[in-house]
Amino acid sequence: MNKKQLFENICRKGSFLCVGLDTDIEKIPQHLKDQEDPIFAFNKAIIDATADLCVAYKPNLAFYESLGVAGWIAFEKTVRYIKENYPDQFIIADAKRGDIGNTSEMYARSFFDHLDIDSVTVAPYMGEDSVKPFLIYPEKWVIVLALTSNKGSKDFQFMSDESGERLFEKVLKTTQNWATDDQMMYVVGATQGEMFADIRKVAPNHFLLVPGVGAQGGSLQDVVKYGMNSECGLLVNSSRQIIYADSTEGFAQAARQEAEKLQLEMSSLLKDYKLL
Amino acid sequence: MNKKQLFENICRKGSFLCVGLDTDIEKIPQHLKDQEDPIFAFNKAIIDATADLCVAYKPNLAFYESLGVAGWIAFEKTVRYIKENYPDQFIIADAKRGDIGNTSEMYARSFFDHLDIDSVTVAPYMGEDSVKPFLIYPEKWVIVLALTSNKGSKDFQFMSDESGERLFEKVLKTTQNWATDDQMMYVVGATQGEMFADIRKVAPNHFLLVPGVGAQGGSLQDVVKYGMNSECGLLVNSSRQIIYADSTEGFAQAARQEAEKLQLEMSSLLKDYKLL
Repeated sequence: MNKKQLFENICRKGSFLCVGLDTDIEKIPQHLKDQEDPIFAFNKAIIDATADLCVAYKPNLAFYESLGVAGWIAFEKTVRYIKENYPDQFIIADAKRGDIGNTSEMYARSFFDHLDIDSVTVAPYMGEDSVKPFLIYPEKWVIVLALTSNKGSKDFQFMSDESGERLFEKVLKTTQNWATDDQMMYVVGATQGEMFADIRKVAPNHFLLVPGVGAQGGSLQDVVKYGMNSECGLLVNSSRQIIYADSTEGFAQAARQEAEKLQLEMSSLLKDYKLL
Repeated sequence: MNKKQLFENICRKGSFLCVGLDTDIEKIPQHLKDQEDPIFAFNKAIIDATADLCVAYKPNLAFYESLGVAGWIAFEKTVRYIKENYPDQFIIADAKRGDIGNTSEMYARSFFDHLDIDSVTVAPYMGEDSVKPFLIYPEKWVIVLALTSNKGSKDFQFMSDESGERLFEKVLKTTQNWATDDQMMYVVGATQGEMFADIRKVAPNHFLLVPGVGAQGGSLQDVVKYGMNSECGLLVNSSRQIIYADSTEGFAQAARQEAEKLQLEMSSLLKDYKLL
C-alpha cells in the first residue's frame, strides 16, 4: 500500500485507528479456549467486529512467538485472514527487528516476501545496514523506533550531543537519508505529548505510528494537536483498551464499542483539521 | 547455566567458541534439500560435528522466521536436540528483541519458559523496562547490544554527549544498574578491535559475546589482547566461516575442521593468558 492509498482509506473511514492484536492466551475469553486455535478465533472475531472502524492492524510478534509453533501458525492465519477479507487494511508486523545486513535480509524476506505484510517495525540501534534490506520492496514500509511510549524511553533516547541534538532526533534525521516518507514511518509514543511538535520540526511529512493511547495514558487530543499533518500523518494504535474491553462471550461487541468511541473521536478531529 | 559453569566448560574444552547457526535454506548442501526438515538435518550434522570444540550455539532467529512455521519448527527441534544431547552447551537465541514491558515479558516467556534457552540478545534502545522482564529467570542471561560489528554501528552507537561519553558506553554503564555480571553479557563486535580496551574500562567482569570474527574481518588476537579477563569473559562467535565451509556431502567434516582451527587457536591463547 502506498501513502496516497493509506490517506484515502483514512478519509473514507474517518479513522486513523490501528488495532493492536497483542493477543495473550491468558487473557482471551474462557469459552474460546476449547477452540482448535483460540488465538486465531479471538483475532478473527476482533477483526470482523472492528474492520470498518480502523485502517490498520498491528499484530505484535512477541505474543505469538511466546506460544512457539502454535503461535506462529496463529500469526500467519491472522495475516492471511486480513489480506483475504479486508484487503484495504494496512498490516504492521510489530517485530522491532534490526540486525546486520544479511540477517535483516532474512527478516525482510519473512515479512514482505513470505507473508506479504505491508510494514515492519525496526529498531535503529544497529544503523543503516540493519534497515536498508527492508527498503528494497516496493510499497512496503519500514517503521523505525524514534521516541517510544514506555518509561525506559528516558534511558537513552533523550541523550543529547554537544549541539543539543537528542538521540531520537538524530535517528529521525539520519534515517531520512535512507528512504523517503513513502517508505518510512516512525514510532512515536502518545505518552510523549508535546514532543510531537519537536518531531514534526524534523519529520513534517512522515506518517507516525503512535502507541500509548489508552492503557498507557497518552492523550489523543495532544497527539493530534501537535502531530497531525495535511495527509493526517498519524496511525494511532490501541491494543488492550479495545481487544480486552470485555472477557465474556460479548468480547467482540465490546471491542467494537471501544473502537467506535475512538473512531468517532478521530472522525471529529479530522473534521476539525479540515481533512474530512 | 551460571557464570562459573560457563568458565569451567571453557577451561575443560580449551575453547570459548560459539557456533552461529545462521542456517539459510538457500545455502545448505543440495543433498539435504530432499529431507523432511532440511534445516534441522543441517543443524544436527553441524552440531554433532562441532560440539566437543565449542561451548555455545547461537541460532539466529531471523533465519528460522524467514521460513515461517516450518522455520520455527526447525528452530525448536534444534534447541531441543542440543539440550538433550549436549546439555553443557550454552544456548543463545540471537533475537535482538526489546519492547515495552508487557511485550518483553512475552518474549522472555517464549525463550526462557517455553524453550528453556540460556540467553537471549536484546536491543537497548527502549531502555530499562524493555530489558527487566528477561531478568526474573534465575540462571538465564540477557545479552545487550553494546557495540555491534556492522558498518551501521557508526550511525548512532558512537554519538557522544557533552562529557564525551558515547552511546555504547552509556548503555554499558546504565544497564549495569539493572543486573549483575551473573545475568548480563554484552554484544561487542570483533571488528571494533581496540575498542575492547574502552569496553573493559566500563565492564571489566562481564562476558562479551563477540561476533564478526571471520567473514566480517575481525581479529581473534586483538579481541583476546584487549578483551580477555580472568574468567575468559569472551564468547567468540563464528557462523558462516564454519557452517558454510563446504557445500558438498562433506560439509559437516569441513565445518569441524574450521571449528578445530579456531579451537586450537583459542586453546593456545587461553594458555598464553594462564587460564589453562
